[in-house]
Amino acid sequence: MITAGSLAPTTKPGPSGPDWAMRLDAWWRAANYLSVGQIYLLDNPLLREPLQSHHVKPRLLGHWGTVPGLTLTYAHLSRIIMARKQKMLLVAGPGHGAAGLNAAAWLEGTYSEFYPEVGQDLDGMRRLFRQFSFPGGVPSHASAHLPGSIHEGGELGYCLAHATGAALDNPDLVVACVVGDGEAETGPLATSWHATAFLDPVRDGAVLPILHLNGYKIANPTLLSRMPRHELNSLLIGHGWRPVEVTGTDPQEIHEAYADALSLCLNGIFEIQGSARAGRVHGGRRWPMIVLRTPKGWTGPDVVDGKQVQGSWRSHQVPLAAVREDAHHLALLEQWLRSYRPEELFEADGSPVPLVRDHRPLGTLRLSANPVAHGHTQRDLRLPEPFAHRVELTEPGKVVAESTRLLGEYLREALRLNRDQHNLLLFAPDEHASNRLDAVFAETGRRWQLATEPGDDHLAHDGRVFEVLSEHLCQGWLEGYLLTGRHGLLSSYEAFAHVVDSMVGQHAKWLHTAAQVPWRRPVPSLNYLLTSHVWRQDHNGASHQDPGFVDHVLNKRPEVVRVYFPPDANCLLAVADHCLRSRGLINVIVSGKQPALQYLDSRRAAAHCAQGLGVWRWASTDLDGDTDVVLACAGDVPTQETLAAVEVLREFVPDLRVRVVNVVDLARLAQPEVHPHGLEDTAYREIFTEDKPVIFTYHGYPWLIHRLTYRRPGHEHLHVHGFHENGTTTTPFDMCVLNEIDRFHLALAALERVPRVAGRLGHIRQQLLDRLAEHQEHIRRTGEDLPEIRDWTWNG
Amino acid sequence: MITAGSLAPTTKPGPSGPDWAMRLDAWWRAANYLSVGQIYLLDNPLLREPLQSHHVKPRLLGHWGTVPGLTLTYAHLSRIIMARKQKMLLVAGPGHGAAGLNAAAWLEGTYSEFYPEVGQDLDGMRRLFRQFSFPGGVPSHASAHLPGSIHEGGELGYCLAHATGAALDNPDLVVACVVGDGEAETGPLATSWHATAFLDPVRDGAVLPILHLNGYKIANPTLLSRMPRHELNSLLIGHGWRPVEVTGTDPQEIHEAYADALSLCLNGIFEIQGSARAGRVHGGRRWPMIVLRTPKGWTGPDVVDGKQVQGSWRSHQVPLAAVREDAHHLALLEQWLRSYRPEELFEADGSPVPLVRDHRPLGTLRLSANPVAHGHTQRDLRLPEPFAHRVELTEPGKVVAESTRLLGEYLREALRLNRDQHNLLLFAPDEHASNRLDAVFAETGRRWQLATEPGDDHLAHDGRVFEVLSEHLCQGWLEGYLLTGRHGLLSSYEAFAHVVDSMVGQHAKWLHTAAQVPWRRPVPSLNYLLTSHVWRQDHNGASHQDPGFVDHVLNKRPEVVRVYFPPDANCLLAVADHCLRSRGLINVIVSGKQPALQYLDSRRAAAHCAQGLGVWRWASTDLDGDTDVVLACAGDVPTQETLAAVEVLREFVPDLRVRVVNVVDLARLAQPEVHPHGLEDTAYREIFTEDKPVIFTYHGYPWLIHRLTYRRPGHEHLHVHGFHENGTTTTPFDMCVLNEIDRFHLALAALERVPRVAGRLGHIRQQLLDRLAEHQEHIRRTGEDLPEIRDWTWNG
Repeated sequence: MITAGSLAPTTKPGPSGPDWAMRLDAWWRAANYLSVGQIYLLDNPLLREPLQSHHVKPRLLGHWGTVPGLTLTYAHLSRIIMARKQKMLLVAGPGHGAAGLNAAAWLEGTYSEFYPEVGQDLDGMRRLFRQFSFPGGVPSHASAHLPGSIHEGGELGYCLAHATGAALDNPDLVVACVVGDGEAETGPLATSWHATAFLDPVRDGAVLPILHLNGYKIANPTLLSRMPRHELNSLLIGHGWRPVEVTGTDPQEIHEAYADALSLCLNGIFEIQGSARAGRVHGGRRWPMIVLRTPKGWTGPDVVDGKQVQGSWRSHQVPLAAVREDAHHLALLEQWLRSYRPEELFEADGSPVPLVRDHRPLGTLRLSANPVAHGHTQRDLRLPEPFAHRVELTEPGKVVAESTRLLGEYLREALRLNRDQHNLLLFAPDEHASNRLDAVFAETGRRWQLATEPGDDHLAHDGRVFEVLSEHLCQGWLEGYLLTGRHGLLSSYEAFAHVVDSMVGQHAKWLHTAAQVPWRRPVPSLNYLLTSHVWRQDHNGASHQDPGFVDHVLNKRPEVVRVYFPPDANCLLAVADHCLRSRGLINVIVSGKQPALQYLDSRRAAAHCAQGLGVWRWASTDLDGDTDVVLACAGDVPTQETLAAVEVLREFVPDLRVRVVNVVDLARLAQPEVHPHGLEDTAYREIFTEDKPVIFTYHGYPWLIHRLTYRRPGHEHLHVHGFHENGTTTTPFDMCVLNEIDRFHLALAALERVPRVAGRLGHIRQQLLDRLAEHQEHIRRTGEDLPEIRDWTWNG
Repeated sequence: MITAGSLAPTTKPGPSGPDWAMRLDAWWRAANYLSVGQIYLLDNPLLREPLQSHHVKPRLLGHWGTVPGLTLTYAHLSRIIMARKQKMLLVAGPGHGAAGLNAAAWLEGTYSEFYPEVGQDLDGMRRLFRQFSFPGGVPSHASAHLPGSIHEGGELGYCLAHATGAALDNPDLVVACVVGDGEAETGPLATSWHATAFLDPVRDGAVLPILHLNGYKIANPTLLSRMPRHELNSLLIGHGWRPVEVTGTDPQEIHEAYADALSLCLNGIFEIQGSARAGRVHGGRRWPMIVLRTPKGWTGPDVVDGKQVQGSWRSHQVPLAAVREDAHHLALLEQWLRSYRPEELFEADGSPVPLVRDHRPLGTLRLSANPVAHGHTQRDLRLPEPFAHRVELTEPGKVVAESTRLLGEYLREALRLNRDQHNLLLFAPDEHASNRLDAVFAETGRRWQLATEPGDDHLAHDGRVFEVLSEHLCQGWLEGYLLTGRHGLLSSYEAFAHVVDSMVGQHAKWLHTAAQVPWRRPVPSLNYLLTSHVWRQDHNGASHQDPGFVDHVLNKRPEVVRVYFPPDANCLLAVADHCLRSRGLINVIVSGKQPALQYLDSRRAAAHCAQGLGVWRWASTDLDGDTDVVLACAGDVPTQETLAAVEVLREFVPDLRVRVVNVVDLARLAQPEVHPHGLEDTAYREIFTEDKPVIFTYHGYPWLIHRLTYRRPGHEHLHVHGFHENGTTTTPFDMCVLNEIDRFHLALAALERVPRVAGRLGHIRQQLLDRLAEHQEHIRRTGEDLPEIRDWTWNG
């Protein structure tokens, strides 16, 4: 391990002058002072009078432990940005140290530019302090309110993936990423170190991880701080990094070491990028990174009530907890605050003294003012005509196509149109070929920096397709890419989207908050294609059958979530095009990849998807009289079985009047006050009736439909068929039967609710059950669906 | 890296005799033959007649690529088990290679013991083949149907955590764990290597990871197979392992190398355990592991249609896809099958020849017959009297207690009672002290094998409390521990339980399947305590506020899921005791840790929790007449606000007749045909009425309550208040107000639905809103809740 501290201390020349360490240290003290102020003070921000308990907040909320390391890092990053005019973005894994980041943004002036009421003066400082973790104020974490942040850091584990995503296609950017040693224990972070196998030194910017070992979590040591140093070094080298250690408890020594380390790292980065960009050797390089060891809660109270606080887990949150009640704690707090010598750092009017104020890069080079973080560097996506690769059909239900294969062609064109813009990437944990999106490989390759071998398929240093068997990495990289203003799509096996449930939840919260922040430009939407879905995982069995991701997504703020079930390929094209054009949303598209019947030509698909739902008159038999029953469906397999049920009914009960409704945009089912896409009750009633039985066949868990419609007129007549967790390895049709969404069960369910066929019901039921039993016997005997099931087409 | 293959080949003595390699190879060929047979054959299992297309399954479902490595490993593990009489358990990460594991269990005889219809004869072999991935047959993955399996392996990433959990408290067991190189890219697996920091060489068994690098995923190389070898070695060493490499493409060489490697590893394991158990040095050891490099689809078709298949991603699933249609493929299949020389391996009656049959350990030493895997080695948990540490109270709503703190005392007693049984462990990603369960540290410590430092708190080599900042590891370890028949509890911040959404989904599927397998004994339930919940994450803000985990859990099979909302500490004790005594379930308990009012003494708590819900007559005001409105609640904060709303109503509308209902067991709200805990409609009606307005204040997303009750009588009168994703850093009461579950909004909601107060409504509404505004103004001014909110008690 290279220990930067072992290099001879030198005077750093450059824009900060020979007294750079003194200036940097003053800035650091100021940032720490302002951080402690945010955690504790309601008033008396500059201690112009002796500290009294009524100056202190009644509820002390915040996390001090990680702050001094964050502010130290910020100070050093600012120094090297000034010295080199280097564009940098900071991703702070320990987002709970937001007090430190707020302080930095305030010192840089950005905070006051974005929030004029929090000026760089005494009153502004008072507001800065008071609002922190305060009702009606700003959160305790690095949320979308914070200038320069793309990462809240509340749920831990995603900082390095976000940093990697931000670096992609940003060749001039260095993304510094503080990784907390607690966070480093999470699975997503542990696999994020593999970024070295994907980052292209030519097309991408660099990621500079700063693993901050302050040794403790809430009340526990951390693994990475306590493993033998050579093992930690080995672990990082094993992932393709070149760690540079910065260790110490003496600020002056640390300043020298940290400055040297950052220089070493940037030089290393430029060397790798330079040689790759000059067309010289591409692989075999290790990216530099920093291992920073400083005490937890450094510069804070050392010993409190006889217990060690600084350098211990006791400084994780609020080191002095009883300040309002305990005069000794109050005195310790005052002593702590004064230890930063605020009188040297701030003018009488509260503004930073020039020494402190000038320790900042100019304009948008400030970490808190990087336009990349605020969505201001977007290049609009160029998208092809969505139906350039449509399915041609003259009547519904005759042509077979694989929906995702057509989408692959659309995506290939989109990649081609944006070839020079470098603003569209595709991600999949289970691979684009498996998801039948492989047309994209005519335009680009799979991103790969490791060794290649004969027989490898479309690996490329600069490929725009990312495949890694980690939903977390795909999601985290895509989030980082989107949050810096670019576009993308994540395709996944439907069941395994649950792996990133918590991540999408955090992203939804970010989007919802960011939409309320006027200086943030809305960023492109997070688009999911869930394919290999529950009804066609008949070959992989129960573990691959779970349609619940959309339930989870629909629990999030309705302003930011959309869920689509295109019934066929042309509808998928229409929906995907719509989603890729949108901003600020989470769009979930569920669509199978298997050969399936096609129903709508491109004109009808466009109109149907624009409506989001509608009556399919061509499939309905109620055109000449009162409707007996409504058969509704959402999802490609439900649509197929619903239409087949109509045929079954036509055969067995020719006089039955059936209306067919297809739903693409699931939120249309909700009322407008519940979801912005919600349909008015009157329109809903026109489609579903309010007094006829509705047999609704839904792709997923049936209660989701009830949840969306329970206040609708006629809800008592709504009967939903869907997935009941009855799954295994079997045939596609048998999967439907096991969950009673097959054509026979649907036909029966419809008939049972039509009073005027009650007299014939017993007879028809027996016929239907016999027919079903015949199919089932065939399936269990031969292992395949009967031709009339397998090759069924719509006869209208 | 130690390369076992470089050791001089030796003849291994021992029970298998000098021709061990020949025997082992024969067994391996037999297992591979049987695997290919399962993927392809309907009939003609031993190729007694020329292979014809009608002998082949119509749908070819399975994964060949990983099988030969799995069967090779199985053969070698069996050899060393025979040689050393070593108890071993096999966890196969690539569970999609189940054909190989089925084959092994059939060769060991276990399959026929558990499934007599699949005998060790020709007919049995035919059934073994036919049933695989076949309708009505067995799944394509290593599900609960498979003897010896505790791990389905459908969703990748959890094998090493499961293996670690199985090894805990099983000092005589070696858990071999095959880690696929695809799976190794996942986050959960990447952090699972840290197991070395937790496994106690004295009390625990050993985990023997076998990292199987066959190089490819579906259509892509894997990271770990393509990184430079020294980097992979470095990565593993960095995590505390000592890798032994086994590489090759020649079976005889591999057999020698693999046997040597396993001997090396077991010797290494015993050395570490021996020295630790003799009381000599504990730390500083590296556990041995194997890195196995063999071609993907080894021994399968080499080149098909001009394309390389063996040793390539093309052998991932079914290497010959068109066997029924393409005579050349059919011929290749026959050639492939015959390459194993089945005539040497099986008798005329289909049973394995003695050479093959005898390559197996005796009785329960067989990997497929390990009673640990089938739940047959359970020691019943001893549990204390649940109310030994109850809250004493003489009237409701006066005493304050922290619910989880009492639970900590209960858990401490439980740990004490089972001290000699070693069958109870506790897990938490965010630490027991933070969750106020720290009473347990009077009995045990935090598990830790790394260095310790002064100031560390209760670290212990053999601690029964596991704390690591990874929900995935906590969940995976606990699952492995439970699936091998022991007991445990996972406490987590409520919001971050979503991190393991997908894992709990997979566990639910396993439990549901396992319950149908008669030779598996039900294993202890997976118990969650979700604390630090949405209403009291006012200090951490929005990222920590998400009550949706229970929604996800309630999407799973109702037979295996339970959700509890104990309203106070005594109820938490009753519920936790009940859950720890249960088997085969997933129990989710949601309970805050903050000081809160207590309502029920232990007798009433026991009765109330046994009922699961009920009218709280002491809090109701409808005892002398018709009910005007029902106020129902589920969750501790909703209960508090509901009771406070009753008081508000009593003050402003003294003549209002309110019924208070509290729900502990959420599934009671569902109908009995929907969930086994569901209440009959008549009982539901008695509690909730069918014609009165019900204001239901629920802890989480309100639509969950609608979903459970939409078919209930009177559902149209049910109005649910809950969490609407309105969260930030603020006061506890303000969190309630933001989501309108505070006492004033609830009181208003009730009043608005009682016709007989309509005349007074305008006036009362204004008074209530004024009172609320006064509170809000105070909160925003001072940062704290008003004393009458903060210190509110029930005045009845």
